[in-house]
Amino acid sequence: MAKEIRLNAFTMNCAAHINSTMWRHPRDTSLRYTSLTYWTDLAQTLERGLFDGVFLADVLGVYDVFRDSPSPAITHGVQFPVNDPMMVIPAMAHVTEHLGFGVTALLPYESPLTFARRMSTLDHLTDGRAGWNIVTGYLQSAAKGTGIAEQAPHDTRYEMAEEYMDIVYSLWEGSWEDDAMVADRASGVLTEPARVHKIEHDGRFFALEAYHLSEPSPQRTPVLYQAGGSAAGRAFAAKHAECVFLGGGSSTTGLARSIADLRRRAAAAGRDPAGLLMFPLMTVVVAPTDEEAEAKLEEYRRWVDPSAALTLVSGWAGVDLAQWDLDDRIEDLRGDGVQGALAQFAPRTDGRSWTVRQAAEYLGIGGSGPVVVGSPGRVADELERWIDETDADGFNLTRIVTPETYDDFIDLVVPELQRRGRYKAAYAPGSYRQKLFGNGPWLPDSHVGRSYRR
Amino acid sequence: MAKEIRLNAFTMNCAAHINSTMWRHPRDTSLRYTSLTYWTDLAQTLERGLFDGVFLADVLGVYDVFRDSPSPAITHGVQFPVNDPMMVIPAMAHVTEHLGFGVTALLPYESPLTFARRMSTLDHLTDGRAGWNIVTGYLQSAAKGTGIAEQAPHDTRYEMAEEYMDIVYSLWEGSWEDDAMVADRASGVLTEPARVHKIEHDGRFFALEAYHLSEPSPQRTPVLYQAGGSAAGRAFAAKHAECVFLGGGSSTTGLARSIADLRRRAAAAGRDPAGLLMFPLMTVVVAPTDEEAEAKLEEYRRWVDPSAALTLVSGWAGVDLAQWDLDDRIEDLRGDGVQGALAQFAPRTDGRSWTVRQAAEYLGIGGSGPVVVGSPGRVADELERWIDETDADGFNLTRIVTPETYDDFIDLVVPELQRRGRYKAAYAPGSYRQKLFGNGPWLPDSHVGRSYRR
Repeated sequence: MAKEIRLNAFTMNCAAHINSTMWRHPRDTSLRYTSLTYWTDLAQTLERGLFDGVFLADVLGVYDVFRDSPSPAITHGVQFPVNDPMMVIPAMAHVTEHLGFGVTALLPYESPLTFARRMSTLDHLTDGRAGWNIVTGYLQSAAKGTGIAEQAPHDTRYEMAEEYMDIVYSLWEGSWEDDAMVADRASGVLTEPARVHKIEHDGRFFALEAYHLSEPSPQRTPVLYQAGGSAAGRAFAAKHAECVFLGGGSSTTGLARSIADLRRRAAAAGRDPAGLLMFPLMTVVVAPTDEEAEAKLEEYRRWVDPSAALTLVSGWAGVDLAQWDLDDRIEDLRGDGVQGALAQFAPRTDGRSWTVRQAAEYLGIGGSGPVVVGSPGRVADELERWIDETDADGFNLTRIVTPETYDDFIDLVVPELQRRGRYKAAYAPGSYRQKLFGNGPWLPDSHVGRSYRR
Repeated sequence: MAKEIRLNAFTMNCAAHINSTMWRHPRDTSLRYTSLTYWTDLAQTLERGLFDGVFLADVLGVYDVFRDSPSPAITHGVQFPVNDPMMVIPAMAHVTEHLGFGVTALLPYESPLTFARRMSTLDHLTDGRAGWNIVTGYLQSAAKGTGIAEQAPHDTRYEMAEEYMDIVYSLWEGSWEDDAMVADRASGVLTEPARVHKIEHDGRFFALEAYHLSEPSPQRTPVLYQAGGSAAGRAFAAKHAECVFLGGGSSTTGLARSIADLRRRAAAAGRDPAGLLMFPLMTVVVAPTDEEAEAKLEEYRRWVDPSAALTLVSGWAGVDLAQWDLDDRIEDLRGDGVQGALAQFAPRTDGRSWTVRQAAEYLGIGGSGPVVVGSPGRVADELERWIDETDADGFNLTRIVTPETYDDFIDLVVPELQRRGRYKAAYAPGSYRQKLFGNGPWLPDSHVGRSYRR
């Protein structure tokens, strides 16, 4: 049976996210990101469109690799300024009933105890709709900003993340037994102390001796997202992630290979490989006809600034793309970090002979993922093809013009996918995990986190 | 002219706060603290009563001093379990327009950079209604819970807090100039980089090199609360606090002395001594007649458990009160920490010859503050007397039965105080700071934080 397509709105608590300079567009409202109603309006829009979740990215530093300076990022507003992603969720939860919330939290910038409490609180307040995107951090500026002189090497960060997971699983799953909360008004016993356990940890990176401060929330452990693309990242995802966020690229081949690899690794770790949901990045421009959609994309592209796109890509790659001229052809690039730069460009330019400028302009809409353009029928065809050829489960949909991108998708694409039986007609009941996987609200028995339960 | 009385609802994201076992009361709803509507209902109730703010306390550990065990706190639910206080605010802000939010955040359990961003985000989302209660932490269990083997000594904690303040003022006030955000859609300049400044700090406790991640929020620095009662705490409050939370005691004399001392210290620091708002703890039981109010308090007292009260007081004092028998007279206490115990008991028992049990039962309602009981007229008389004899500016009102305590106060006491011209008839316009002080939204020029502005 053809898979039902899952959908996350991929966004960030800032004026621009993947499509860096679209805050400039006359119809874009994302400069209102500092106001509560921007977020509550968005939540209601997404719930109208039966989106499974909203997925909030985050960074804790400035993209300062391009031109070895923070100025381009500051000038163009490339994910800067950027507000806290967690704080918008309680209000969004208040105006919705079903929408899930995936929030990025970067390790190790917060003590596991206070972080675990924050997520439990969120899971309580959302009545079991909380998800966590586990990120180990990739900007040197973020490390410096939090008092760490040098960011730990990549693989050390994953060791640190493993230790962090060990602690938060212990807190979420192991500290409180299911029946610890008695709440007996007559006897005055709120909690049975024999059923609440102290977590003791004395590791390489963290030490802790504490009871989890929160009683068990509906899901205990939030739905776990992860996005690492490296070998260490994939191993981590195969072990911990329930949902995986993937780049995308311009063809289905590379994505299919990544997804197959992740499912293989998950199976090797004793998990149901189909139990991992794969969400590649996706950008959609839709209009009643193909011609109108193409024209709309052209109009959007007028607001792209190549240096904003290069600022973003330089930060991702850790390579200063300003060392090359905008008119250099990508296949002729030479110098430091050329492999890193190619790794960013190659999957998207798909063998085309482009200049750096052309590639940057292209990346200005859709970032590292595909851009699907056309009538509702053509878009639905393409989305089905991406799912069917890659074994993905859904998409992380970027916003170009906000909320226009969502409204267009909901008004035009959702009904078409529903007609084809590829999109739900109503939300499933239960927690975020139950809605996504059909069971829950707790982690499945095959998940490592479950082994921390008593 | 007689002062208008300010009012905060003093609460905590847990089942019981000051009045530890009142979750047992049949009409109490605070076991619903994990649900969003508990908080949004509360916010709407408080705004109906024109409360200036809701003040959220916090701890990061278990009260484990009494009987040298966490069991009493866990059993009775003495501020445990306790959820994150910040996460309830965005939803409360969404359903209100004027209510201010004072939130406790304990140092140094979070990096100043991410904390400063969280508060800026809150100030943005609430449209300038954010306040911060600066707490340096007092539970050893909290230090252990966050990987610190031994809590720093008291005075070192204040040195650490000074350094932390230096960093967050730099971020909130100094990193962004007022006109840094350009948001020019035509040119594509979101922010003028020459007007955003990197904060560099290399101190004894913290190191940081970062741009503040958030653009300036309406108030920049949130309204600053502080509650320290020690010499170091008072010096800190006189320098930093705009609002001070005070214990209370059972007579106005001690409180008047504390307030005079704080105003003197503030004046010595070059600040307007009347510019600090003083909020002592207060518990009110009101009913149409004095007799009904007395009966209501008696009924409330039936739900008090002395060992819950002793658990709380032992934690505050850092002295295990279980070393004495419940039938020991307080004036006869001997042994370790007797001074600390007396310091907790003496201001409340007011010279009465009480046993430990009687004192504990007394402390079970109202904690370390006075309990005012009676008809609206008698309560208003008493509240006026407390303000007029102590030079306080308002009260931090505890909840006994939630939301009954608030509803009673709003329905009975508020109209009486309004008739007497001692309570506002409507909210003042503007930010939290403007509502409290009549000017703002920024810190006044005489405040140390203001000196960090460019």
